[in-house]
Amino acid sequence: MRQSGTNLPKVGRYNRAVVLDQIQLADGISRVEIAQYTGLTPQTVSGIVRRLIEEGIIREDGESKGAAGGKPRTTLRVNADAGCAVGLHFDPVELSCTVVDLLGRPLVVKKRPARHVTDPAEVVKDMAELVADVLAETGVDRDKVLGIGLATPGPIDLEHGVIVGAPQLTNWTRVPVQHMLSETTGLPVTLDNDATAAAIGERWSGAGRGVADFAYFFFGTGIGGGLILNHQVYRGGSRNAGEFGHSSVLPDGPECYCGNRGCLERLVNPTAIVAEVHRRLAAGSHPDSALARVFAEDPDAVDHAAIRVAAAAGDPVAAAVIDETAEHVASVAVDIANFLDVDLIVLGGHGIQHVESRYVAVVAAALKSRPLSRHIRVVEVEASPLGTDAAVVGSAALVLHATYSPQLSALVGAGVTPGSQR
Amino acid sequence: MRQSGTNLPKVGRYNRAVVLDQIQLADGISRVEIAQYTGLTPQTVSGIVRRLIEEGIIREDGESKGAAGGKPRTTLRVNADAGCAVGLHFDPVELSCTVVDLLGRPLVVKKRPARHVTDPAEVVKDMAELVADVLAETGVDRDKVLGIGLATPGPIDLEHGVIVGAPQLTNWTRVPVQHMLSETTGLPVTLDNDATAAAIGERWSGAGRGVADFAYFFFGTGIGGGLILNHQVYRGGSRNAGEFGHSSVLPDGPECYCGNRGCLERLVNPTAIVAEVHRRLAAGSHPDSALARVFAEDPDAVDHAAIRVAAAAGDPVAAAVIDETAEHVASVAVDIANFLDVDLIVLGGHGIQHVESRYVAVVAAALKSRPLSRHIRVVEVEASPLGTDAAVVGSAALVLHATYSPQLSALVGAGVTPGSQR
Repeated sequence: MRQSGTNLPKVGRYNRAVVLDQIQLADGISRVEIAQYTGLTPQTVSGIVRRLIEEGIIREDGESKGAAGGKPRTTLRVNADAGCAVGLHFDPVELSCTVVDLLGRPLVVKKRPARHVTDPAEVVKDMAELVADVLAETGVDRDKVLGIGLATPGPIDLEHGVIVGAPQLTNWTRVPVQHMLSETTGLPVTLDNDATAAAIGERWSGAGRGVADFAYFFFGTGIGGGLILNHQVYRGGSRNAGEFGHSSVLPDGPECYCGNRGCLERLVNPTAIVAEVHRRLAAGSHPDSALARVFAEDPDAVDHAAIRVAAAAGDPVAAAVIDETAEHVASVAVDIANFLDVDLIVLGGHGIQHVESRYVAVVAAALKSRPLSRHIRVVEVEASPLGTDAAVVGSAALVLHATYSPQLSALVGAGVTPGSQR
Repeated sequence: MRQSGTNLPKVGRYNRAVVLDQIQLADGISRVEIAQYTGLTPQTVSGIVRRLIEEGIIREDGESKGAAGGKPRTTLRVNADAGCAVGLHFDPVELSCTVVDLLGRPLVVKKRPARHVTDPAEVVKDMAELVADVLAETGVDRDKVLGIGLATPGPIDLEHGVIVGAPQLTNWTRVPVQHMLSETTGLPVTLDNDATAAAIGERWSGAGRGVADFAYFFFGTGIGGGLILNHQVYRGGSRNAGEFGHSSVLPDGPECYCGNRGCLERLVNPTAIVAEVHRRLAAGSHPDSALARVFAEDPDAVDHAAIRVAAAAGDPVAAAVIDETAEHVASVAVDIANFLDVDLIVLGGHGIQHVESRYVAVVAAALKSRPLSRHIRVVEVEASPLGTDAAVVGSAALVLHATYSPQLSALVGAGVTPGSQR
């Protein structure tokens, strides 16, 4: 593990990315403002802006008034349709696909049930079909497609673009999915795990825009996490950072498959939530619970989605269980605040659909009252504005991030983006 | 919060620091090896090395054989006595002071009880006297003193070099100690909290040399922490990262002064450990415990130090309590492994003197069996080789770090080192 030096071409690419990042984050910005915010000289900014305009990535868009008596400043904006990225989220039960513009805004999202999940070649074929579908539907010029971002359940081997094998993915032992999908589609493929992809999506076009340090909780079948520290994706030495789901919140709690006890994910997952609600509904009478009446007629109808909808509507049994699970999430959020002093915690993923505001309320209350540094500043919490599409929009953002974001790893590393292969 | 661009002078300073870092980390290294490890061109490396030799910071030291048939390579080493740094640790009960050479090796350590702690001006006077003492005793040339590193209990305001006020420091409300000490001594002063200083000391001359990502637990009166991520000190948005002591390890545990419950620091601190050992000794007969016999004669003799010495010697009561506290530390270490995927966890500070190996054994066992990524790699744990001098040696390392380390904040930030003032 060595620290690398840097050189002029890397500096040029980095500064270009820094300038583009400012334009992407702002709703219209002038050259003078970019120089102020980035510390770059006006000359450097002008040179980079000229080349970005020539390449069609940004455009001049009217003038704004400068300081009193100063000459008007030209507003710069990203040409959102100068390029696009495809995102694919491979969930064991569903494939989702999107095309996003240069600002990370989805033009379309298509989903289909995942078929033949035990046969990687068939899954890659389905992925390629779905990509062809969304490109046809949006009618974007193929030359403008920067690449495909593929988000999959972890663990993956980013170095080799390989899915190592997730609990639910039988036969996926070291499948070179990145290479296979690139061969089939003729497009470069960037691979990452779904929680990291979703975190990058938040940084690009969600709640984390312009935020230096934030933690992202991804609620899917399990609980994944992603970390953006100092504006950079933080992955850790073996690229396994962000496993918030395996924090032990009840030291004497039930055993988790991971080998730890009382893990957050063991207590807060769809199966556990459904089991707990069923237990309470079966154990007592709940005259004020609409969900209890459904349960009496058909217990199977009280599934995870029904519980979340009921909790959102204020059903007392469903709401109590959801709020208790949110308390566990809050404990881990407080640990993250104490360990990492992040600016923001983002909650996202389909697992909290309908109950986002309950989760946010419980976590916000904990962050206001328990971290040591709360008197200096309170860590914010937000639900992802990307909703259930966080992972698929995030997977497209992987491509934008690899192509455009100012990445220190490119400045002081070997200059190779992990997990990207053409 | 914006990402800054960079420029040629910053790149030059950064690359110089990267080269010096390689020489400092290696026990003899050639120009060719530096180029290989850093990715810098041989020309860039040669230019930087030439200037470092001219400035007397490094020297050529014999030749080693190059690759088969290649010409011999000149070995480069840091001139350890080309400069030195003073370290001061301000603990509410004790002032410690050291002078270290350019490799971070202490030439002397002096301690004195902290007097007049309620009068900041008197404390600064004592600090200045202690600095004069160690400089006189080591006889180093004043011109060679790079500066003073001052480590204090947090929280501090690094921006303004001010101690904000720690629980044990009455009258220390926003005292501009950095400026006061610099005025009195005529030397530049770098301020930081003691846990961060100790972590930087580990990175410079302790267990963390050359390690990209590690977490440091500092056991003093409380439990502090420091994080080195991607070879950089990670401080967080409000500079309060690393509060490992306030992780809630027992959700229903006793209330902590911080507002959380069952905090690690609440369970693992000298007072709590002494109380628990006394409780057990008073409650039952322990024929196999030498400590029980001491307790029977004089309970006050069974203090924190005596308990640690007894545990190290295998006393069953002391060892059981120490191992139980180590289990709590292990839980937080597992969380850090899951959240941050660090390479190493370092345990240090006077609070674990004599029982370092018991703590390391318990934490190592947990890191081997509980983090999710343990099948990919096991996170290491080590006791700090700096022992009880971790904070004072670390405070001197603050100066070396600010002067010599390749800091990304200097490359892509405003170029100002936080907390340093001349």
